[in-house]
Amino acid sequence: MTYSYISLENRPQGAPKQGDFRLQTAALPKPQDGEILVKVDYMSLDPYMRGRMDDAKSYSAPIELGQKMEAGGVGQVIASKNDRINVGDYVFGMFGWASHACVSGKEVRKLDPSLAPITTALGVLGMPGFTGWYGLTQLAAPKSGETLVVAAATGPVGSMVGQLAKSMGLRVVGIAGGADKCAFACDVLGFDDCLDHSQYPDASSLRKALAQHCPQGIDIYFENVAGKVLLAVLPLMNVGGRIPVCGMISWYNAGALGANASHAQDMLPKLWRTILVNRLSVSGFIISDHWDQYPSFLKQVAPLVASGTITYKEDIVQGLANAPQAFINLLNGGNFGKLIVQITP
Amino acid sequence: MTYSYISLENRPQGAPKQGDFRLQTAALPKPQDGEILVKVDYMSLDPYMRGRMDDAKSYSAPIELGQKMEAGGVGQVIASKNDRINVGDYVFGMFGWASHACVSGKEVRKLDPSLAPITTALGVLGMPGFTGWYGLTQLAAPKSGETLVVAAATGPVGSMVGQLAKSMGLRVVGIAGGADKCAFACDVLGFDDCLDHSQYPDASSLRKALAQHCPQGIDIYFENVAGKVLLAVLPLMNVGGRIPVCGMISWYNAGALGANASHAQDMLPKLWRTILVNRLSVSGFIISDHWDQYPSFLKQVAPLVASGTITYKEDIVQGLANAPQAFINLLNGGNFGKLIVQITP
Repeated sequence: MTYSYISLENRPQGAPKQGDFRLQTAALPKPQDGEILVKVDYMSLDPYMRGRMDDAKSYSAPIELGQKMEAGGVGQVIASKNDRINVGDYVFGMFGWASHACVSGKEVRKLDPSLAPITTALGVLGMPGFTGWYGLTQLAAPKSGETLVVAAATGPVGSMVGQLAKSMGLRVVGIAGGADKCAFACDVLGFDDCLDHSQYPDASSLRKALAQHCPQGIDIYFENVAGKVLLAVLPLMNVGGRIPVCGMISWYNAGALGANASHAQDMLPKLWRTILVNRLSVSGFIISDHWDQYPSFLKQVAPLVASGTITYKEDIVQGLANAPQAFINLLNGGNFGKLIVQITP
Repeated sequence: MTYSYISLENRPQGAPKQGDFRLQTAALPKPQDGEILVKVDYMSLDPYMRGRMDDAKSYSAPIELGQKMEAGGVGQVIASKNDRINVGDYVFGMFGWASHACVSGKEVRKLDPSLAPITTALGVLGMPGFTGWYGLTQLAAPKSGETLVVAAATGPVGSMVGQLAKSMGLRVVGIAGGADKCAFACDVLGFDDCLDHSQYPDASSLRKALAQHCPQGIDIYFENVAGKVLLAVLPLMNVGGRIPVCGMISWYNAGALGANASHAQDMLPKLWRTILVNRLSVSGFIISDHWDQYPSFLKQVAPLVASGTITYKEDIVQGLANAPQAFINLLNGGNFGKLIVQITP
């Protein structure tokens, strides 16, 4: 009996390539005392994985070359030496880019497939949804009547942030790549507006468009992309504005200021001056620091998902072998909704 | 009867020059109902005044060309049409760069010269000391055993921050310009260490020295200078670090990245990444938003000043006519202690 997994073969310079990954086969391990063997049904692909591929100080250790890529996944237990978990149980855990995983039972969370589809544990009710909820409710102090901007609007973080903010009475302006995503943000997610960033060649033109759609300025910028969007948003921030920072996908590949590089020399002083003059609060956070609040999130948000008040979109790619290309596309905004890989046999 | 004042004649490009100011004479006004006439004894010179000289959006309106420069001052009432304030009272108010001022009695605060020298209302017990207290105690959540770095260490903000932090059990490393200032910070203010920034040509060399003096990293960076110091501090910030931002004197004159400009393109992405990876909280604040907490500050800190637990140093320049040059020197770090102008007749 063997299983498949994908390893990291090279540390990418800039954007990852197919050749940085390798599909491997290995003997299926047998669970030891306390362990379980899981057949993975779905795995999650998330922007943070790009950071794990670099050999740089970050909030968790880099993946070693030749080792399995990291990922959350959901699947069914096919063998158990753990009293708490039975064969047939559905569980969430960090199973990696793999068809099977043998892990300690302490490291997984049981799922009830009758409450919600198990894929939701990877998106709207998993780490990305929790990230959006935590940053908005715990760090951004949203108030009815304020204006919030969030990019990657149809992604699992952005769509949680925007829908929660709408339910709290904020004006929500999304940013997304493509007319279809913008239409989805407005028509399905209920955002007030959504701008297609591909229509704006640089930060300056995006800023002008944002200013029109945020006539009262911006009180909260939920940062998950950085780059052009950050530069466009900063001059529009209101006094007392808040910027929770959970990611910066546009800067994960190289130090790419792109069309805005000619203004680079002034950027840091300008940012710092804006923080001072407008009394901004900028708060970086890593959601893995805050799992103690995950039950509060689930208690509040799971009923909203069950009732359809908060909706979600999943983008499911078939086959573990297609994970590298799907991940490469994700970093370029090629997905539409929460990107998930179904591990077909 | 006439009085003297100094007006703003030009908006400086970069560093202010003598010719940007003009000493003027005008007829002494007579107080109307509710007003008082004050003979100013001392006026304050502070870095924030540089911002008022630009015609740019900031946290308060720019000074109009031809109009009196703004400043806090202390002096004695020589005529009063206000029931609450008598001739002979000592008061603090925004009297400007001027020998006399006629203002509403509502705009001044009475001082008791028997409790503390009246000049302390401009420094250790005034706006700068309050700024240091507020940023440290209300925004930086200092904890015993942590490491704090503050620049302009012998200035009125830095010396308040450092001394308060020492009293709370933190390790305090100052940065100042010159061996005399560094010796004062360690020997008189009680800092653990103080680095002379003039000994380090760029951010990289300053960072290396700071790393040696902050062996456990930096938990709090109290930002009042920006520039080289900010760039040196950022890579040393610990996870969960806090950066209250009350000023950036090194960036007030032009967008001067100086010796570090060659790295400019990466600076903003690097800062943003550090905020995320190290979960930093960066909080801009303007002390004038927080006068409601000034009584709390006075209640806590005035006894510490009276007992000598918190000490202070004043740098007193003689004569209103010397205020422009003193202010120009201040922006270059030429003062040593709280810069005050004594308005000699």
